[in-house]
Amino acid sequence: MAERVNKNNGKIPEPTLRRLPWYLSNAKLMKERGERYVSSTQISRQINIDASQIAKDLSYVNIAGRTRVGYEIDRLVSVLEDFLGFTNMHRAYLFGVGSLGGALLRDSGLSHFGLKIVGAFDVNPELVGTEINGIPIYHTDEFEERTEKDKVKIGVLTVPINIAQEITDKMVAGGIKAVWNFTPFRIRVPETIVVQNTSLYAHLAVMFNRLNELVKK
Amino acid sequence: MAERVNKNNGKIPEPTLRRLPWYLSNAKLMKERGERYVSSTQISRQINIDASQIAKDLSYVNIAGRTRVGYEIDRLVSVLEDFLGFTNMHRAYLFGVGSLGGALLRDSGLSHFGLKIVGAFDVNPELVGTEINGIPIYHTDEFEERTEKDKVKIGVLTVPINIAQEITDKMVAGGIKAVWNFTPFRIRVPETIVVQNTSLYAHLAVMFNRLNELVKK
Repeated sequence: MAERVNKNNGKIPEPTLRRLPWYLSNAKLMKERGERYVSSTQISRQINIDASQIAKDLSYVNIAGRTRVGYEIDRLVSVLEDFLGFTNMHRAYLFGVGSLGGALLRDSGLSHFGLKIVGAFDVNPELVGTEINGIPIYHTDEFEERTEKDKVKIGVLTVPINIAQEITDKMVAGGIKAVWNFTPFRIRVPETIVVQNTSLYAHLAVMFNRLNELVKK
Repeated sequence: MAERVNKNNGKIPEPTLRRLPWYLSNAKLMKERGERYVSSTQISRQINIDASQIAKDLSYVNIAGRTRVGYEIDRLVSVLEDFLGFTNMHRAYLFGVGSLGGALLRDSGLSHFGLKIVGAFDVNPELVGTEINGIPIYHTDEFEERTEKDKVKIGVLTVPINIAQEITDKMVAGGIKAVWNFTPFRIRVPETIVVQNTSLYAHLAVMFNRLNELVKK
């Protein structure tokens, strides 16, 4: 896989960032099995990525492999968890407690990877004032006031598409620096704001399409 | 954005497939607002993608724009929904009713995009025999027997990483043709099997990293 690696600007390429969690889960698994060392060749065999790519990816992380022995697994796990931000708790708000939003509030797995949703916002009077999984649901109008106190930097966007932009603008005005966008809507933000798009529906579309091609063959 | 487009093999590029849902949600929104026609230039302005890229992407879909008027919105919506597979109901099984698996079972939004989870599998005796959101939970051992009757082609993978490969092998042996992998584990499958990776944790890692860079500046 050809890839532009530019160490000088200190920015780690997104494909690398997306592969690191694979190495982490692989290392965790080997740790569970009682292994102490792992080489990039071994990881390569298990997850089917070029060993040289793995070594290159891991060169961004503060860990050195030893010739013939490889990486110390304990250290690999902790360095990767740390590097990926899973050991720091990042507080977040969620906007839009619909079907997907509610599901994410109930997914306590996120907190094992460093994301703690500390509050949710909606306008539905049946939801406002209640909580899901211990997370309080506030009226959207309360956001400004809340955020001044909480100083939350991450917003999870799970609102209907017709208000996705409006709520995004509100978030940004209130000091949110990163938006995790689960809507299939392409939101616009100022350049300094981080957007991570995770459209389950776009992924579904890719999967359906590939599946249809398979059936046609 | 440079992109290799190869119409001859009939395979639509993944970046295009990922952008089409953006055009769809945009068209739905304009339809709600009472608009009848939209041009690629208008879409471009709203979602910040090159108009020529949009026209190229839409050329894969069975719709023609009219000079000066653009695409008929009603038709654009229905053609895109159809093309993306959202109008056909695709039945699926879910494997692993943990925190994320349970959340996905509760997310009835998936069915609006063509995915109907008709059964879930787990080994937890407290879950087996119960249902979530009307979806029955079976013991994993019942999968072979069930799939012979149900002929389900899609499997949603939300098990712990230490059994991700084992369950994948089981799915494939039972006739599953597409695996929607939510685990951070890189599963291995035969070449003819479709894998769609949606690791929320990998997306989180990318977001945390970008956010940290921002703070450093």
